[in-house]
Amino acid sequence: MANMTASALQAFLDGHFPASGIEVLSAGGMRAEIMLPVGKQHLRPGGSVSGPVMMTLADTAMYMAILAELGPVAMAVTSSLNINFLRRPDPVDMFARAELFKLGKRLAMGEVKIFSRGSDDMVAHATCTYSIPPV
Amino acid sequence: MANMTASALQAFLDGHFPASGIEVLSAGGMRAEIMLPVGKQHLRPGGSVSGPVMMTLADTAMYMAILAELGPVAMAVTSSLNINFLRRPDPVDMFARAELFKLGKRLAMGEVKIFSRGSDDMVAHATCTYSIPPV
Amino acid sequence: MANMTASALQAFLDGHFPASGIEVLSAGGMRAEIMLPVGKQHLRPGGSVSGPVMMTLADTAMYMAILAELGPVAMAVTSSLNINFLRRPDPVDMFARAELFKLGKRLAMGEVKIFSRGSDDMVAHATCTYSIPPV
Amino acid sequence: MANMTASALQAFLDGHFPASGIEVLSAGGMRAEIMLPVGKQHLRPGGSVSGPVMMTLADTAMYMAILAELGPVAMAVTSSLNINFLRRPDPVDMFARAELFKLGKRLAMGEVKIFSRGSDDMVAHATCTYSIPPV
Repeated sequence: MANMTASALQAFLDGHFPASGIEVLSAGGMRAEIMLPVGKQHLRPGGSVSGPVMMTLADTAMYMAILAELGPVAMAVTSSLNINFLRRPDPVDMFARAELFKLGKRLAMGEVKIFSRGSDDMVAHATCTYSIPPV
Repeated sequence: MANMTASALQAFLDGHFPASGIEVLSAGGMRAEIMLPVGKQHLRPGGSVSGPVMMTLADTAMYMAILAELGPVAMAVTSSLNINFLRRPDPVDMFARAELFKLGKRLAMGEVKIFSRGSDDMVAHATCTYSIPPV
Repeated sequence: MANMTASALQAFLDGHFPASGIEVLSAGGMRAEIMLPVGKQHLRPGGSVSGPVMMTLADTAMYMAILAELGPVAMAVTSSLNINFLRRPDPVDMFARAELFKLGKRLAMGEVKIFSRGSDDMVAHATCTYSIPPV
Repeated sequence: MANMTASALQAFLDGHFPASGIEVLSAGGMRAEIMLPVGKQHLRPGGSVSGPVMMTLADTAMYMAILAELGPVAMAVTSSLNINFLRRPDPVDMFARAELFKLGKRLAMGEVKIFSRGSDDMVAHATCTYSIPPV
């Protein structure tokens, strides 16, 4: 059972990052799924979604998966992120699905798979570690 | 000698990413340095600069270093990025310094070191590869 | 259907890396699983399996998954590898399971999950890209 | 001043990894340089030095740089490694030069640059984090 539900995470995200535009679709069970309604401000030259937008999605999906387990008091911060871009994404909504592989006392680690709406081909894959400060 | 000067890169950046706020300080010789005037919109819970802001800085610094060599026609795209966060950055301006280690026909690879104004302690370190499409 | 079966891959591995000790358990369908009978030579101070041994396993599992698709003529070489260590492995046999996320004309990318015999807790997770030379 | 000199590190390495063949050339000041006399056992199909050999070099160079600061009692273990391969190395001796960017109480992070004897072109670049257990 999650310590924060998807709607609690949505409120947290909207409060701290009011401009993100990200929607929390589901969270719990060491997983989270988020969605970004892609607009002009997310595109790069050539018309595809920019790399940093997908990095932000990966980082945010991991953050949501961790907070779903630990609750809002946990001031976890990203300690590393590695991302590989596999395909040029069309300018459509994007989904990021995080799965935690480890949630220890000091460190969380997991992966995020990023997709475009309407396609099963992975657009980007990220792994990410978060540092969890002592309570 | 660079194919694009710092001021040409600044115009390119302002044209394609009008909301970035990033300033191109120098470019050429397989290097580039950029600066971000940090504002409230760049902060995360706890008051430090958010991870995705630094990922964006790393990616942009690499992009500038590559375009400085290849010119604006090169539609290079990020193929991977790896970043390690070393210290929590204070909410002050940030600098990103890119250095290319390889600039091949198909792939560019380099590193980016990120600092906060007023400190010599590296805040984050990134390595990044860009894919360079055939001319 | 794989271009190289597990037994063909085993013969390839034994021919090119006679000292590896690695066994190819299965291959095909964009996946491969290998096993390393762990001995004293694989341990580090403290008695756990050394990091480079697991890096070798990750790289080899990816290589097997790629050759299973492309056949032995493809001189694919690793272009990047990222690995996170999640738990200290006991000095027992290790398994590495590779899955390809992309197999393009120039680049293959996938992940490898590493386990110790007798446990379902992932010991290490790697992502890896291979460069595929033109035919 | 280093807590372990290059010759003390060499003895440590020979004691714990008697088959490595690695020579510690220098250590101290947050840096270390090591050298591998490359032999047939280090080569891969195509005649270049294999990826895992360079991963081992990167990991070992970081380990030496850390132990040079902390001394032999520190049972530091690799927590992550990211490596990019830039050029196919000729079958000649290889050098790995590590530099620590951070040496904290819990985590060390740095980079390693790998070269072949007789060339100034970097062959591979790695970043690496080590976890430092409580004393």
